[in-house]
Amino acid sequence: MPIAAFAGVFSRGAAAAALDDQAWVQALLDVEAGLARALARAGLAPESAAHAVQTVAQARRFSLTELAEGSAAAGNPVPALVRALLREAGSLDPQAERAIHQGATSQDIVDSALMLLLKRALPHVVDDLDACADAAADLARSHADTLIAGRTLLQHAVPLTFGLKAATWLHALVQLKTQLAELLRGLPVQLGGAAGSLAALEGRGLEVMQLLAEELELSCPALPWHTVRLPILEAAGVLGRVAAISGKIAGDLSLLAQSDVAEVRELGGGAGSGGSSTMPHKQNPIGSIAAISCCRRVPGLVATLLCAAEQEHERAAGGWHAEWETLTELVRLVGSAVSWLRAVLEGLEVDAARMRRNLDAALGLPLAERLSTALMPALGRTAAQAFVADVCARAERSQRPLLAVLSENPQLMRVLDDAGIGAERLNVLLEPANYLGNTRELIERALAEHARSADTGAGTRTGDS
Amino acid sequence: MPIAAFAGVFSRGAAAAALDDQAWVQALLDVEAGLARALARAGLAPESAAHAVQTVAQARRFSLTELAEGSAAAGNPVPALVRALLREAGSLDPQAERAIHQGATSQDIVDSALMLLLKRALPHVVDDLDACADAAADLARSHADTLIAGRTLLQHAVPLTFGLKAATWLHALVQLKTQLAELLRGLPVQLGGAAGSLAALEGRGLEVMQLLAEELELSCPALPWHTVRLPILEAAGVLGRVAAISGKIAGDLSLLAQSDVAEVRELGGGAGSGGSSTMPHKQNPIGSIAAISCCRRVPGLVATLLCAAEQEHERAAGGWHAEWETLTELVRLVGSAVSWLRAVLEGLEVDAARMRRNLDAALGLPLAERLSTALMPALGRTAAQAFVADVCARAERSQRPLLAVLSENPQLMRVLDDAGIGAERLNVLLEPANYLGNTRELIERALAEHARSADTGAGTRTGDS
Amino acid sequence: MPIAAFAGVFSRGAAAAALDDQAWVQALLDVEAGLARALARAGLAPESAAHAVQTVAQARRFSLTELAEGSAAAGNPVPALVRALLREAGSLDPQAERAIHQGATSQDIVDSALMLLLKRALPHVVDDLDACADAAADLARSHADTLIAGRTLLQHAVPLTFGLKAATWLHALVQLKTQLAELLRGLPVQLGGAAGSLAALEGRGLEVMQLLAEELELSCPALPWHTVRLPILEAAGVLGRVAAISGKIAGDLSLLAQSDVAEVRELGGGAGSGGSSTMPHKQNPIGSIAAISCCRRVPGLVATLLCAAEQEHERAAGGWHAEWETLTELVRLVGSAVSWLRAVLEGLEVDAARMRRNLDAALGLPLAERLSTALMPALGRTAAQAFVADVCARAERSQRPLLAVLSENPQLMRVLDDAGIGAERLNVLLEPANYLGNTRELIERALAEHARSADTGAGTRTGDS
Amino acid sequence: MPIAAFAGVFSRGAAAAALDDQAWVQALLDVEAGLARALARAGLAPESAAHAVQTVAQARRFSLTELAEGSAAAGNPVPALVRALLREAGSLDPQAERAIHQGATSQDIVDSALMLLLKRALPHVVDDLDACADAAADLARSHADTLIAGRTLLQHAVPLTFGLKAATWLHALVQLKTQLAELLRGLPVQLGGAAGSLAALEGRGLEVMQLLAEELELSCPALPWHTVRLPILEAAGVLGRVAAISGKIAGDLSLLAQSDVAEVRELGGGAGSGGSSTMPHKQNPIGSIAAISCCRRVPGLVATLLCAAEQEHERAAGGWHAEWETLTELVRLVGSAVSWLRAVLEGLEVDAARMRRNLDAALGLPLAERLSTALMPALGRTAAQAFVADVCARAERSQRPLLAVLSENPQLMRVLDDAGIGAERLNVLLEPANYLGNTRELIERALAEHARSADTGAGTRTGDS
Repeated sequence: MPIAAFAGVFSRGAAAAALDDQAWVQALLDVEAGLARALARAGLAPESAAHAVQTVAQARRFSLTELAEGSAAAGNPVPALVRALLREAGSLDPQAERAIHQGATSQDIVDSALMLLLKRALPHVVDDLDACADAAADLARSHADTLIAGRTLLQHAVPLTFGLKAATWLHALVQLKTQLAELLRGLPVQLGGAAGSLAALEGRGLEVMQLLAEELELSCPALPWHTVRLPILEAAGVLGRVAAISGKIAGDLSLLAQSDVAEVRELGGGAGSGGSSTMPHKQNPIGSIAAISCCRRVPGLVATLLCAAEQEHERAAGGWHAEWETLTELVRLVGSAVSWLRAVLEGLEVDAARMRRNLDAALGLPLAERLSTALMPALGRTAAQAFVADVCARAERSQRPLLAVLSENPQLMRVLDDAGIGAERLNVLLEPANYLGNTRELIERALAEHARSADTGAGTRTGDS
Repeated sequence: MPIAAFAGVFSRGAAAAALDDQAWVQALLDVEAGLARALARAGLAPESAAHAVQTVAQARRFSLTELAEGSAAAGNPVPALVRALLREAGSLDPQAERAIHQGATSQDIVDSALMLLLKRALPHVVDDLDACADAAADLARSHADTLIAGRTLLQHAVPLTFGLKAATWLHALVQLKTQLAELLRGLPVQLGGAAGSLAALEGRGLEVMQLLAEELELSCPALPWHTVRLPILEAAGVLGRVAAISGKIAGDLSLLAQSDVAEVRELGGGAGSGGSSTMPHKQNPIGSIAAISCCRRVPGLVATLLCAAEQEHERAAGGWHAEWETLTELVRLVGSAVSWLRAVLEGLEVDAARMRRNLDAALGLPLAERLSTALMPALGRTAAQAFVADVCARAERSQRPLLAVLSENPQLMRVLDDAGIGAERLNVLLEPANYLGNTRELIERALAEHARSADTGAGTRTGDS
Repeated sequence: MPIAAFAGVFSRGAAAAALDDQAWVQALLDVEAGLARALARAGLAPESAAHAVQTVAQARRFSLTELAEGSAAAGNPVPALVRALLREAGSLDPQAERAIHQGATSQDIVDSALMLLLKRALPHVVDDLDACADAAADLARSHADTLIAGRTLLQHAVPLTFGLKAATWLHALVQLKTQLAELLRGLPVQLGGAAGSLAALEGRGLEVMQLLAEELELSCPALPWHTVRLPILEAAGVLGRVAAISGKIAGDLSLLAQSDVAEVRELGGGAGSGGSSTMPHKQNPIGSIAAISCCRRVPGLVATLLCAAEQEHERAAGGWHAEWETLTELVRLVGSAVSWLRAVLEGLEVDAARMRRNLDAALGLPLAERLSTALMPALGRTAAQAFVADVCARAERSQRPLLAVLSENPQLMRVLDDAGIGAERLNVLLEPANYLGNTRELIERALAEHARSADTGAGTRTGDS
Repeated sequence: MPIAAFAGVFSRGAAAAALDDQAWVQALLDVEAGLARALARAGLAPESAAHAVQTVAQARRFSLTELAEGSAAAGNPVPALVRALLREAGSLDPQAERAIHQGATSQDIVDSALMLLLKRALPHVVDDLDACADAAADLARSHADTLIAGRTLLQHAVPLTFGLKAATWLHALVQLKTQLAELLRGLPVQLGGAAGSLAALEGRGLEVMQLLAEELELSCPALPWHTVRLPILEAAGVLGRVAAISGKIAGDLSLLAQSDVAEVRELGGGAGSGGSSTMPHKQNPIGSIAAISCCRRVPGLVATLLCAAEQEHERAAGGWHAEWETLTELVRLVGSAVSWLRAVLEGLEVDAARMRRNLDAALGLPLAERLSTALMPALGRTAAQAFVADVCARAERSQRPLLAVLSENPQLMRVLDDAGIGAERLNVLLEPANYLGNTRELIERALAEHARSADTGAGTRTGDS
């Protein structure tokens, strides 16, 4: 759970809202109620008992304080919850206890509830990823030809288009959306009883596990996973990747939004206005920064879940407990990050003119690679690179464009001429827009993938992607 | 690379051996040679040039010192490697330079080499996982009925069989093997040129990328992934899970091997003899401990890769470099862990008699849950649990088995009788072998999954699984 | 903040309570009020204005929702807090605004508030560490001679006393208490203004910084630390160590409490009763497990703070924000862990008889090292070790004590005799209580250190340690 | 150990060189030899035996392969090392074995060797930190008045001087150097024997521990620390902080070196030339990037050490082993990072003109805060901020400096006039050089601290700081 004062940053969007104190209690109750129905369907408990459990299984009827205290006594809140449930349901139906917690252990309830919470929260993340992808696709399309400096190691490299940058983001977003949707389809129920053998269900355990999975609309695993935590780790893996890519995109945006670069700007939209109370001129890229901040907290949480997975025997002495808040936090932060990113991408103001101006400030040097390649057949690699390095140095010294430095120096032009590069060819060679390689096709590939993925969404957005 | 003195612990097995200094250089050279062939197939370089590159691309011809120094100068070893390659290949064919590094940037070479290394090292991990699964399957089969205490929170819970423990491990091992094999099939080549647009290949870039993928037998991605590091992170994810589960299994084994438990013992096999130089009586479970140690180092490395994935623009200012040794180390450690685990599982000595003795030392209390359930219909939940708690306390005080405590006390037997539980039924109820729930079916499920997975191996073991 | 249902586990004790939503808001307000007083003392704001701010600076007057929403708009809650404060204080004194937030930036307020929170929460951790040390000292004293198996790599090694185990814990606890107390004394205020130059205070900045430090009873650093985060990292470092050692001690306790070892048991006290709802016989070591669980989550959080410390220029684009909840969580978890540990140690039931029984079950083999050393002068190292190894093997095969195996075999006794070891000496050599080395002195050293440290507590416990 | 091809990046400088394969073996031998001398001094072994051990304790006499294989057999290399040492020393003196490994266990040797390695490697890190501090001090002094944009959240905030940036770095570097030097003074020997009681030394253990500490010039702890790993964690803590700050400084430099900012440039010096093989115009800030890359890998390693510290009983089942390579790697990476940083700082080219140009490109808006503060007394906070926000918007729209926008608009000037701000005062208010607050004093404070710290170096540089 977030600290309230910071909730606007770290607890943004629908996924975070689906993980609050009440949501956890409701998920625990839903598993108990699902088990009651499963037991009834298997003939192991009276219908009326299951109905009573179902009726009272509403979070608002249960005291958070009682559960908190119960968790101190037993190490988890389930025994206290079961006691309260027996009390509540028992007042409706004296037989209720026959449908409550039969055959289950605390871990079955908590683990299944955790899967339910993922099932409820993650579709919102899928939605936001989907919207991010839509926004990135729009940027890729509309800026397919908008020249921008490609930047490697934070230095200008060769020219690109902003559309290709967006397409690269898009490509990753579409993959992540697909992976998250696949994860959602496989979330498994957990039911193993005291130590994983389903002993207390006296041979009916596998049947009840299947029915419970149906009741909760979770998948039914071949075996219980009480101490082989692959479902937790697979979720952590995908969420970690979503954070990594969201952080990468938000990082790019925060760099492009630097005062000294100023190629993009965050607009109102969902993101904060970004104003500073003491510096009225500042236009902080709040959305990107908030997203980065959420993402920065993720690797440590993923590592915690990996560490916690070394679980002893049939129930871990600490590792299991360490997962509950950690995975919840992980979803909250990733959900917030993607929600922020969506707001930023949907409201992004792109300054194409500034992109071109920044590119031109490099004096055409980013085209040096091309010139050097063009000279190689005639001069050989070493001489070609030496020639170009010399010309670049002249351009830097004089702060004049490469093209001008060459055009105005007959001696240099002669070298080019001898290599079969006349003035016209030189113009073509040094025009950034002519040195974009497969930019167009790459953008189209990303857009095509995105179009294909639109049909297979697992989110809650229907008909709007 | 390991520290030599510790190599026996942390650099064990074929995967680790496939990642040494020479292997890295060879992988870099293989990418350059593959690119040369791809360029030649695309008609962008003479066949003879590609052939010259191919001929000299042997790690032993290149100086590690030169590459190390080159990496200090340029931040990575590729420029120095390219210079050396130009020199070596140039002496065979004056045209060689036309086939060397054309259209590529350092990152293309390093990233593709990293994928090649994974392709070479990971099949050995798949093999060892496969062998672990075979060994676990043998244990599951042969100990399907070997009673053992189920242990939760390190306390005796209900009885299980050792076969079910092994089946639970098997279930996870089979999933991991499948996931790792799938990862292996998808490892992508990287080719993007200076900033991801393939500009220097002047429109032929996608074709060359496809040919390079074919040459290196890697998959061909839709777009370059120079700063969206999903291939790295997906590998880290699966490897992290392999470590987590290996650590869990090795942890269970180290706990079972405790002097005070002594239910299993590591045998010679591949694992160390486990002797202590100063304590001749000690039989340390070296293999399990070494595996745990390797696994304990993994979450931090996965977190590093997640942190490093926040990569700026078209090449990261630090994050990219941070991946090289980290991912290599990750594979080395996971490979060592699985190799250790294989040795332990293949040579495991199981002491079924001690398992039973330890179980019986619990005085039958692990069956208390069952007795309490059996009493509930007659007594109601609360009274049943109170009755059983009282009987358990008596057993503990007197250190006599539950069955004896009950049988010898007519008053207690009367309560049971009234609840319809006669002496014979009591005997049945308190026999551990009768309280195993779905143990049999769960073991069969795991064995069936394992059998199905045997056909789809991605490892190098053929015909032996 | 914890998830309510789990608060009993992860939000235990006074430190956790000092970090809730209200506590954060109050700390932010206390910094603003402290700044107001500092400005007034420096003559930069009217006394009445400072008084008005002071009067209204009560968390309950401020809306958490408003702050949460404000944090979404600005990336942190301070601008919204300042607006609310202007409104509240302005209604008391029209001049109030002259004392509000003058010269400060949001980061000054949040960073100083974080230090205030540490100052308020950590003394409770010191107290609990102190109480843990007292309890460990009691155990060290009262079990100075209680024999127990020393266990290395989870195998019986040579005998120890339980008092020495406790003394080893004590030694670490005392060091940690001292380090935490030292940290508390150095917590620095942060005041730098917009970018660290204190520009808006027009030359009076250093004076105001000093006064603010006095008002908040924090230390005054030489320079602002807005992006060199040593105070955060030093706190994280000590807290990480407290968790590591708490986890070690709790881990030892959970291993000693295993059903198969049963040398200690958690008692009522502050810790949970440890009962299981479905397994009435179980006596789970809830306190140890809860402590382990808290500690297991700490390394990931420390890593997050280290990652976040790579902060750009004069205010980080994400790294700063990532600290707020992370450090709060870290203190909460460490505070809970130490609170659990205190309850466990204060209520620990030690079964000395079982310790001896477990030790004897090793058949005297842990003394083999000693016998082998005693034989070396006469036999030489190799022969001595071979002889002892053979005798150990006989003992294990026959499951009879080493002493019996030797005494009953004249041939073996002759070898001993020849080496100058007669029956009496053999008895002495193989008595565990005679092979304790410096155990006594080591315990005394730890107790003496503890006694010395009792005078220098930084906690709130006075006169009771 | 580094991968050879990348050694130039990740294994730079004297600290890394002090940690290679040979260094580890030598450290292990030095501990055995130190123990031999200590035993002789205590009268527990013949002088000649100690001398023989001392004579042969040279790494080059021992086979790395033998040790590696030995570590596979025993889980650590010490038993194999002891065997080889017995062989080597035994050939010199038949009594040698009496001085070899007596009273020690493998862990004593490895732990003490690790401390020795720190003692040898860390002074080089102190030296490089010292040199970094010197270079930062030079920058702070010579650029005390060099105006630069203060940047918060990557946006221009108020003006600073580059000297203040350097002073902020300096302040942190001096603290770290002091902390590292303090750590060095406290590195403790480890000697506990089989399980920490020093049993095998039969009451002479504490004396031998003291003598061993003297021999190795390590400090002598009150108690052995075989499973309370504070010495490891304290080292990790300081190293983590060194990395965090080095990463912060290198990050700042890489941002200042961006093509679009270009305020600093790395020069030859120790750092790489930074050229790109394919892009002759590029001047990559290789040193900063390499430093960032080293630092990025550190938090994961620190987390691993924290995780590993949960060590069982008297020797950990995995956690101990996990420390060896991890701590070595940590020192190697931190050492490389600081060595890179030194090269960068010592060879930094600062473009003061460009700093001013970039600052001016902000149109004077960074002074808006000041103008708004100046207007507050007359207009009140709200109106003042609104007025300034409006003027800033005009400046941005017209892309003309704030001063011009105001001066040329009589209506706006009238508002200022009415608030007592005439043209002259306006000029003063909007001159960046007049809005530097306590910049001068802060720089002097940092320089003074640095001067004080110069006397207390723990490094190997004497007389040159």
